[in-house]
Amino acid sequence: MGIEKENGATILHRATEYQPPRSWRTWLIGRPLPTADAPHQTIGKAVGLAVFASDALSSTAYATQEILIILAAAGTMAFGYVFPISVAIVVLLAIVAISYEQTIHAYPGGGGAYIVARDNLGELPAQTAGAALLTDYILTVAVSVSSGVAQLTSAFPELFAYRVPIAVVLVLFVMLINLRGVKESGAIFAIPTYFFMGMMFLTVGVGLFRHVTGTLGTVVGPPPLEVAAAQAITPFLILHAFSSGTAALTGVEAISNGIPAFKEPRSRNAGITLIWMAAILGSLFLGISLLAGPIGAVPSEAETVISQLARTVYGDQGLLYLGVIAATTVILIMAANTSFADFPRLSALLAGDGFLPRQLAYRGSRLVYSRGIMALALIACVLIVAFGASVTALIPLYAIGVFLSFTLSQAGMARRWWKIGHLSPGQQVQERGSVLRREARWQLKMVINGLGSACTLVVMLVFAGTKFVDGAWIVLLLMPILVAIFSYIHHHYQRLARQLSLDDYGAPPRLARHRVILPIGGVHRGTLAALQYARSLSDDVTAVHVALDAAEAERIQRKWETWGEGVRLVVLDSPYRLMLEPLLEYIEEVAAHRQPNETMTIVVPQFVPGRWWNSLLHTQTATWLRLALLFKPGIVVTDVSYQVD
Amino acid sequence: MGIEKENGATILHRATEYQPPRSWRTWLIGRPLPTADAPHQTIGKAVGLAVFASDALSSTAYATQEILIILAAAGTMAFGYVFPISVAIVVLLAIVAISYEQTIHAYPGGGGAYIVARDNLGELPAQTAGAALLTDYILTVAVSVSSGVAQLTSAFPELFAYRVPIAVVLVLFVMLINLRGVKESGAIFAIPTYFFMGMMFLTVGVGLFRHVTGTLGTVVGPPPLEVAAAQAITPFLILHAFSSGTAALTGVEAISNGIPAFKEPRSRNAGITLIWMAAILGSLFLGISLLAGPIGAVPSEAETVISQLARTVYGDQGLLYLGVIAATTVILIMAANTSFADFPRLSALLAGDGFLPRQLAYRGSRLVYSRGIMALALIACVLIVAFGASVTALIPLYAIGVFLSFTLSQAGMARRWWKIGHLSPGQQVQERGSVLRREARWQLKMVINGLGSACTLVVMLVFAGTKFVDGAWIVLLLMPILVAIFSYIHHHYQRLARQLSLDDYGAPPRLARHRVILPIGGVHRGTLAALQYARSLSDDVTAVHVALDAAEAERIQRKWETWGEGVRLVVLDSPYRLMLEPLLEYIEEVAAHRQPNETMTIVVPQFVPGRWWNSLLHTQTATWLRLALLFKPGIVVTDVSYQVD
Repeated sequence: MGIEKENGATILHRATEYQPPRSWRTWLIGRPLPTADAPHQTIGKAVGLAVFASDALSSTAYATQEILIILAAAGTMAFGYVFPISVAIVVLLAIVAISYEQTIHAYPGGGGAYIVARDNLGELPAQTAGAALLTDYILTVAVSVSSGVAQLTSAFPELFAYRVPIAVVLVLFVMLINLRGVKESGAIFAIPTYFFMGMMFLTVGVGLFRHVTGTLGTVVGPPPLEVAAAQAITPFLILHAFSSGTAALTGVEAISNGIPAFKEPRSRNAGITLIWMAAILGSLFLGISLLAGPIGAVPSEAETVISQLARTVYGDQGLLYLGVIAATTVILIMAANTSFADFPRLSALLAGDGFLPRQLAYRGSRLVYSRGIMALALIACVLIVAFGASVTALIPLYAIGVFLSFTLSQAGMARRWWKIGHLSPGQQVQERGSVLRREARWQLKMVINGLGSACTLVVMLVFAGTKFVDGAWIVLLLMPILVAIFSYIHHHYQRLARQLSLDDYGAPPRLARHRVILPIGGVHRGTLAALQYARSLSDDVTAVHVALDAAEAERIQRKWETWGEGVRLVVLDSPYRLMLEPLLEYIEEVAAHRQPNETMTIVVPQFVPGRWWNSLLHTQTATWLRLALLFKPGIVVTDVSYQVD
Repeated sequence: MGIEKENGATILHRATEYQPPRSWRTWLIGRPLPTADAPHQTIGKAVGLAVFASDALSSTAYATQEILIILAAAGTMAFGYVFPISVAIVVLLAIVAISYEQTIHAYPGGGGAYIVARDNLGELPAQTAGAALLTDYILTVAVSVSSGVAQLTSAFPELFAYRVPIAVVLVLFVMLINLRGVKESGAIFAIPTYFFMGMMFLTVGVGLFRHVTGTLGTVVGPPPLEVAAAQAITPFLILHAFSSGTAALTGVEAISNGIPAFKEPRSRNAGITLIWMAAILGSLFLGISLLAGPIGAVPSEAETVISQLARTVYGDQGLLYLGVIAATTVILIMAANTSFADFPRLSALLAGDGFLPRQLAYRGSRLVYSRGIMALALIACVLIVAFGASVTALIPLYAIGVFLSFTLSQAGMARRWWKIGHLSPGQQVQERGSVLRREARWQLKMVINGLGSACTLVVMLVFAGTKFVDGAWIVLLLMPILVAIFSYIHHHYQRLARQLSLDDYGAPPRLARHRVILPIGGVHRGTLAALQYARSLSDDVTAVHVALDAAEAERIQRKWETWGEGVRLVVLDSPYRLMLEPLLEYIEEVAAHRQPNETMTIVVPQFVPGRWWNSLLHTQTATWLRLALLFKPGIVVTDVSYQVD
């Protein structure tokens, strides 16, 4: 405890080592952590790849399948387009990756779409990027967990009927892990990611080898095709299939959010990791799409394409097959986990900027943003239940948010290069998230980011157009609503801050007179304790009794003469047997005749029984009175509670 | 406004003519009535019969049928027992009626079973009688309305599928009428009761005439018998059937509750009305039971015996038939209405004696006990839904309560005569409900009431024994539970009164010191308003800030130096980012070191947004703090609210 005196005000510091007691929460999410324990470990490239790549790599588990489902509308012969479409998507991936590599160098402190848009494009684009990202994170959880469950039910078809409850339990499980707080670093993430990469490269490698040597057969007993093959192969269909496939790009932005976690030189390490991740993602995705045709894979809710591929490549459903299924399921759950790290962090950022309720910016007992984590789990579960844990049903909602945030982020970067290009040599400008200083070849970098922005914008428009009726309209409707909510909240906080501000605030008004009103229902020890308290506040005390019953009022008056200590008692006759209304009317009348700087306190004797259910045996007049007077300015309500039992 | 000064205390009277504003409630139940408007009209014998007989007479609508249903287990040949059983029930009725006639003279102020048991037998029997009566009133509503709906669906079978919703709507309708407040007197009651009597005497009369002249046929197309006729005619079966038939006696006690409503000489008028009612009830019941055999009436949920009787007597389903159905339906709904008058009155009586929550003793805006009325409607609706509006399913629960209250009431009367017999000549004893004075032939009267009590006790035991498995166990279980609840409530109020009593209470303790604690989350206009208020309470003010964030705490300290008016600020470091707990710990620590007669006030600045949903954007620290401190004695919590928007 230290004491400092400055300007006449005494300020005492107390380091309360308040240790929260053990409870069911301790058991569930662990002992609370002190603020000083916030993690600041950094990671290298190999671990960084494992930590941040799970979301992006996991999309190879469903991207090829989602292309096939669209093409199936034109029959199995349309499946031949899956490889060219995949090549187009990988080209797009390359553009986005190079774009983001530039962002990483510009924002070494973390360059998510919200920050880049906020610093370079302004408030509305920033809010739009925020809305897009939050939507995207929610959908990542729903899609990844649904896809993970689909892998599981491919291997164990008897679980298919329970896919919705399984998915919900998995989301709650991931939520719980995140409420405990997971360190982002460490082998716990590296093992499954590298296991997944190993299994997938092995499967694709063996598959390609057998394909080249002509020993690769076709899928034995493929699941029945669920789509009626009645449509012609139109450009719309191809674009539609392309849109579905762009789900492969989701998660690419993860590294740019997490740059501070890397070892120095962190931008360089993060950039190299991003390029590696894009290369692995692209080659796996291309390999799967290339093999899907020869083996005659059929898109189906009952068995995933990955499952069909693995059992065809390995010739049976043995250990290697089960390894692929296990690796895929685990990496998909881990992809959901990435959203659980990013969503609460972004909500806290938005809350800190005053666009979301302030509570989201407070860390919980385990140093994580618990409220954001629970909100994400709740919304994702609602989505999973509403869409029956079907990846195909959820996909039309997905990716719009991703590509909108890509577009805004890259546009922001392009704008940033333009600003840099117009700096005079040697000039430096400090922005919130980064430092602007003249760089060589800014024109080329501006063109690269501009191209990235344009490409992702086109993809987003194609996506919105081809998938509008399938469900994209929901997201297109939701986005402006979210932005409107952000603005409303921002407006509220700003106005509040203005109204509470001490700038241009003179001396606070002195209180000249203090009038106290003491409503009483009877004269007993509780009332007398309240009377004592009321008299300690002011000499101007008036007791008020609302008389519902004449005989009772008479008795109270007599008792007051004995016990009232000379304090004035006003008896309000209530011919309609109303308790609260005459009292409020009286208080308002007295308040209307107040002098300036006169304050008024209503001292309410409140009876508090020892057991809460005994409250049912009493009229809760004090509670109702407080609620009724809460919105009246300048009237203070004080409960003087007296405990019985 | 009158001013009186006595003993130094000023007492002001204000006749607030507070007129409650019009609202949806006004539209639903009418304008509020002032207390002075309480009705005090009295009624004569003819209207009295109409008002109080509906409950008792209405039981002729189902009593015969319920006897037949039990007998049906031994086949239609057992139906021959219906008349002898009915004779036995009428004999019982005569005994009960004569017993109650004596009660009426002894309790001119109203002699319900609760009052008689309370004054003569003590607290436990009184509570038992109260529990029995409340149960009985609830079941009267459920049984009568269900039976009324059964009459309706006999004439209009297409409504049978909707009997539960129809019954619920009828209960709510009767509830609404009672919330408006019905005057017990008036032609509104006389017309349907006399219409019912007329129609029933006409039906029974024509039926007997046609039976004697041999022109009465049998029921055309009777409903199928729903019971498998497999049992032998055993004494148990006869007793079982007798038990069901005793439902005919329900409602006989109504007049003894309502004596004050009669014109003077009220006991005499009420007594004569009771005898008349018993005679009418007995003869109608006997007549119906006599005719049920010859016409071959079959008990059924699909068509009531009354409906079968009426269409057989009149030969068609014409106007007279419909008249019988209409009269029966209406009188059954009116029987429910009787319970709506008695249940709230008894609850208010029990609440006044401290056995039920006090709120039940307050009259609502229309001068009726609104809470009791709504409670009755709610419980009756639950019963109707649970038992599918089936009279036969509800009957086993019924009548136990009635006969228990009969037994207790008559036993109380017998004890009263015994007390009177032991008075010295000329001696008078004032009891709560009546005056004891020596009367001639007290021995005979004691024997009559004793016989009544014994008979009803035997019937109750027979009822409980024969109908135990059918549902009587529910009531036998419920009764002690209700009595236990009454005792608990009584105990609570008594202890409370003792703890609040001013007897043996010395001078109230003077407050020596007033310490004020002001928790602050920031320094702004709201905080400064609260600081002003806190300083007006005491010179001993301590501001407390819980520091979740070191930088924020630093800023607050700097601002406090400018604005804190030299008031001491304690900064509580909260390493676990908890807001409430360190504050509570601090308050408790300060409270623990209090001097005697020191009082402590926590002044909490509470932010009140203009629109309630904006509250979601703020942590409701003040609310949580108040809840946490509510149970701590000697700590007063004051919200100084500041309105924004």
